[in-house]
Amino acid sequence: MIRVAVDAMGSDRGAPAVIEGAQQAASGAIEPVVFGSAELDTGGLEHVATTQVVGMDEKPADAFRAKADSSLVRAVKAVADGEADAVVSPGNTGAILAAGLVLLRRVDGVRRPAIAVPIPARKGPSVLIDAGANSDCRAEHLLQFATMGVVFAKEILGIARPNVRLLSIGEEPEKGNRLVLEAHELLAASELDFRGNTEGRDLLEGAADVVVTDGFTGNVALKAVEGTIRTLLEALRTEITATTAGTLGGLLIRPASRRLRARLDPDTYGGAYLLGLRGLVVIAHGNSSPTAIANAIRLAARGVEHDVVGRVSARLAQPQRAEIV
Amino acid sequence: MIRVAVDAMGSDRGAPAVIEGAQQAASGAIEPVVFGSAELDTGGLEHVATTQVVGMDEKPADAFRAKADSSLVRAVKAVADGEADAVVSPGNTGAILAAGLVLLRRVDGVRRPAIAVPIPARKGPSVLIDAGANSDCRAEHLLQFATMGVVFAKEILGIARPNVRLLSIGEEPEKGNRLVLEAHELLAASELDFRGNTEGRDLLEGAADVVVTDGFTGNVALKAVEGTIRTLLEALRTEITATTAGTLGGLLIRPASRRLRARLDPDTYGGAYLLGLRGLVVIAHGNSSPTAIANAIRLAARGVEHDVVGRVSARLAQPQRAEIV
Repeated sequence: MIRVAVDAMGSDRGAPAVIEGAQQAASGAIEPVVFGSAELDTGGLEHVATTQVVGMDEKPADAFRAKADSSLVRAVKAVADGEADAVVSPGNTGAILAAGLVLLRRVDGVRRPAIAVPIPARKGPSVLIDAGANSDCRAEHLLQFATMGVVFAKEILGIARPNVRLLSIGEEPEKGNRLVLEAHELLAASELDFRGNTEGRDLLEGAADVVVTDGFTGNVALKAVEGTIRTLLEALRTEITATTAGTLGGLLIRPASRRLRARLDPDTYGGAYLLGLRGLVVIAHGNSSPTAIANAIRLAARGVEHDVVGRVSARLAQPQRAEIV
Repeated sequence: MIRVAVDAMGSDRGAPAVIEGAQQAASGAIEPVVFGSAELDTGGLEHVATTQVVGMDEKPADAFRAKADSSLVRAVKAVADGEADAVVSPGNTGAILAAGLVLLRRVDGVRRPAIAVPIPARKGPSVLIDAGANSDCRAEHLLQFATMGVVFAKEILGIARPNVRLLSIGEEPEKGNRLVLEAHELLAASELDFRGNTEGRDLLEGAADVVVTDGFTGNVALKAVEGTIRTLLEALRTEITATTAGTLGGLLIRPASRRLRARLDPDTYGGAYLLGLRGLVVIAHGNSSPTAIANAIRLAARGVEHDVVGRVSARLAQPQRAEIV
């Protein structure tokens, strides 16, 4: 039985949507534990009552320090204390990261935890890492992100020998900013199956099994892809319904557009892994639907089954090497 | 009569496509001058014969130095020599930048030229600057980019008092990397109508009249938007044509999808301005259609009419101030 601590208070949609998702995910193999206010009706799921809530706009470090009894901090602590095998939170990403760094701590040898997001690319899923944990990075961080991304692609996406590309502004090795030029050299000299640079245009097409970048660029790019999908589909609907023939056509293509939406739906994965910590953390979207929460919990359980934390540790632990940070 | 030097040799589609575009743009007000090999048939357009060609993959500085008689270098030089009012090239962006820096030189006070790209956002066009000229920037560069972007939005897009947002990973002022945090302070203290940060998700929706960023992030984000549009529309077509009902529906929505494509079509503007030089340079896509070339030439002519170079100079020239680069 895999126990997943679920932070019910951090979602934009309110605790009931999170609890509904937890109920969907509950099974013979998965036991969600709901962390949140004492008044919640968890419909039979195990419930740990907490008294505080971390807001989306709170400064991460302050929130973590001031709110030891928040659902977010308590849920992360449950993993640190061995009371749960993984944690899922749709809350404040910075606060989850802060709580993870202090309560779970980094895997030996890992300099920076990073966010790995599965992208529903046309050629098959790929992993974008870092999608937002580290705004300012050094080249050696990117090499570690790539290594963690490979573990994710292998264990979670089931890709036997994942290849890696570096997000840049041209495929040639000499294209990019200083960080990318340095990271390119490190990646090329590494044991990874590094295939060179890729560009923003190939993210949704399927650039590589693992696309590595710093957290600032990764977050901007990921949101550009998500926003463009949303704006484009909305604009298409507006254009289609502007005429009667178009509206009829719209009805006829509805199954096709549903299939496409289902493939692109962020709810399919429901969450992103925060990799590099000594405990499994899945960050869900702030406005996650119950389905997205359920899938995020399943994603967390899968990470426990495949021992993602242990495998990241095995790839990156370098106890003999002096830590030069 | 506005004379526009057109580099006919740099396009992926070959010189005839460029010449066809130049012929479309030729009018009582616009006189394209074709730079390219002596064998070209320019169909009556003025022709300056050149003997060399800069390839897309050549290193910019090398190409510029080694190929003084290339169509690209000669076309830029024509502006420097006063023989043309502006230049349009679908060629190697780095080489155009190198030629511009040496032959045209920067406007007094401008530290870095930047690429301004019009984005066909849903709420109306906006300008992304820098879209790729400068991979590594400092905060003061971003402030100058924003100022040049405002000139572009005003003169070319006709927006009376353009507002400005800074591309980041959250709307809160404390979100971002070091560069963005510093640039945020400079922008907030400036005379510009600065509205704070914006995110990648709002680029195609319409985040602001001017979206400012460094050239690395801007290029990744722009290509992410372009690539997502392309992948999504292709995937939708594949899904639609998979069934008979879908195919019929696809015919019925064709006018709607054409309207949408027309709005999103990069050919509508045809090119991006390279701002901050003492001469007007428009960079066209490498695979520009004749229509895109014609529109890029018209865009260049419009910049001449509105004295974009003079206005950038008036906003940024600081002859008294010591240049600390």
